[in-house]
Amino acid sequence: MRKGALLIISAPSGAGKTTICRKLLARRKDLKYSVSCTTRLPRPGEKNGKHYFFLNREEFKRRIQRGELLEWAMVHDEYYGTPRHFIEDQTKKGLNVIMAIDVQGAMSIRRKHPAAILVFVLPPSMDELKARLAGRRDATEVVAKRLANSRGELAAAKDYDYVVVNDALEKAVDQISCILTAETLKTSRLDPSHLTPALA
Amino acid sequence: MRKGALLIISAPSGAGKTTICRKLLARRKDLKYSVSCTTRLPRPGEKNGKHYFFLNREEFKRRIQRGELLEWAMVHDEYYGTPRHFIEDQTKKGLNVIMAIDVQGAMSIRRKHPAAILVFVLPPSMDELKARLAGRRDATEVVAKRLANSRGELAAAKDYDYVVVNDALEKAVDQISCILTAETLKTSRLDPSHLTPALA
Repeated sequence: MRKGALLIISAPSGAGKTTICRKLLARRKDLKYSVSCTTRLPRPGEKNGKHYFFLNREEFKRRIQRGELLEWAMVHDEYYGTPRHFIEDQTKKGLNVIMAIDVQGAMSIRRKHPAAILVFVLPPSMDELKARLAGRRDATEVVAKRLANSRGELAAAKDYDYVVVNDALEKAVDQISCILTAETLKTSRLDPSHLTPALA
Repeated sequence: MRKGALLIISAPSGAGKTTICRKLLARRKDLKYSVSCTTRLPRPGEKNGKHYFFLNREEFKRRIQRGELLEWAMVHDEYYGTPRHFIEDQTKKGLNVIMAIDVQGAMSIRRKHPAAILVFVLPPSMDELKARLAGRRDATEVVAKRLANSRGELAAAKDYDYVVVNDALEKAVDQISCILTAETLKTSRLDPSHLTPALA
């Protein structure tokens, strides 16, 4: 059986990656969400185990030491990381796994899994990004820090395999779904035995 | 403006590439069909200038000599070739061009246009392929020659970028349309200036 693919979605805070992931998951039964770990505080409405595994710094460091994280990074002075076991279990079953992770994390995954599909989601404009971040109930200094960080992250888009502009949500979701479909049809991902039935 | 992409569709005779191309063209306004030249005789219903430009051998050789063909090859003892000007005009306008060409032609296009997207369409099985070829009103020896040639062509699938199995027509068309969409979102095809609006 073909192993599942890893689909990595990165975007500056406020570009809409959480909504895009939710819509993709609702649409594709072959796609599973990898819940990240973080030491940052939950935002209103965020649930432990669904949006993130919210851990204190001691517990996070313990998981690093035990080798339970596929990658981890420090972003906005908080730890973020990707649990290893969930991804291995799902891809072995032939399911694809989607992850919403930062630029450092994405590059780290690529080093370990060169076949991972890296998609960068761009906001339609910097003004739109400011408006979306301001609409969140984070503290003003958190918003300012995220915005400064976003400018740096945007420069990383060129290191990704694909760039999708989120100027219309459904269009962006269609495009990322197409990227996943196309990638699974790549000859380089085919088990050679898959060609045999047609030749028989 | 972004230059259009070249989408090359190859398949053993009878795998359904003509129908797939027709359906794709009906669906996507950004896609134009490159009509090939050939010296083979028209099948019932085939129109000159629509399905092929039907040329005699002298006229075909003249076009080779004048450099009017992007590539040409001999298949089943007949000449097949791709006119150069149509492709250049359309891709300059940002339109994508689809071509249904044989394996030799596809490899020749790739050498000249490394960014061309090569898709191989597989029949669901060899039995299905035989049935489809027998359904055509070609002479028996033509069918036998095509079938023998198909086995050789199937082995070439691994040299293509993507492999699509035509076991259900609409699914195959969806998949090829996704391949084109995904390819146009590749960072490697992006004009760097396209990232500027989001950074402004």
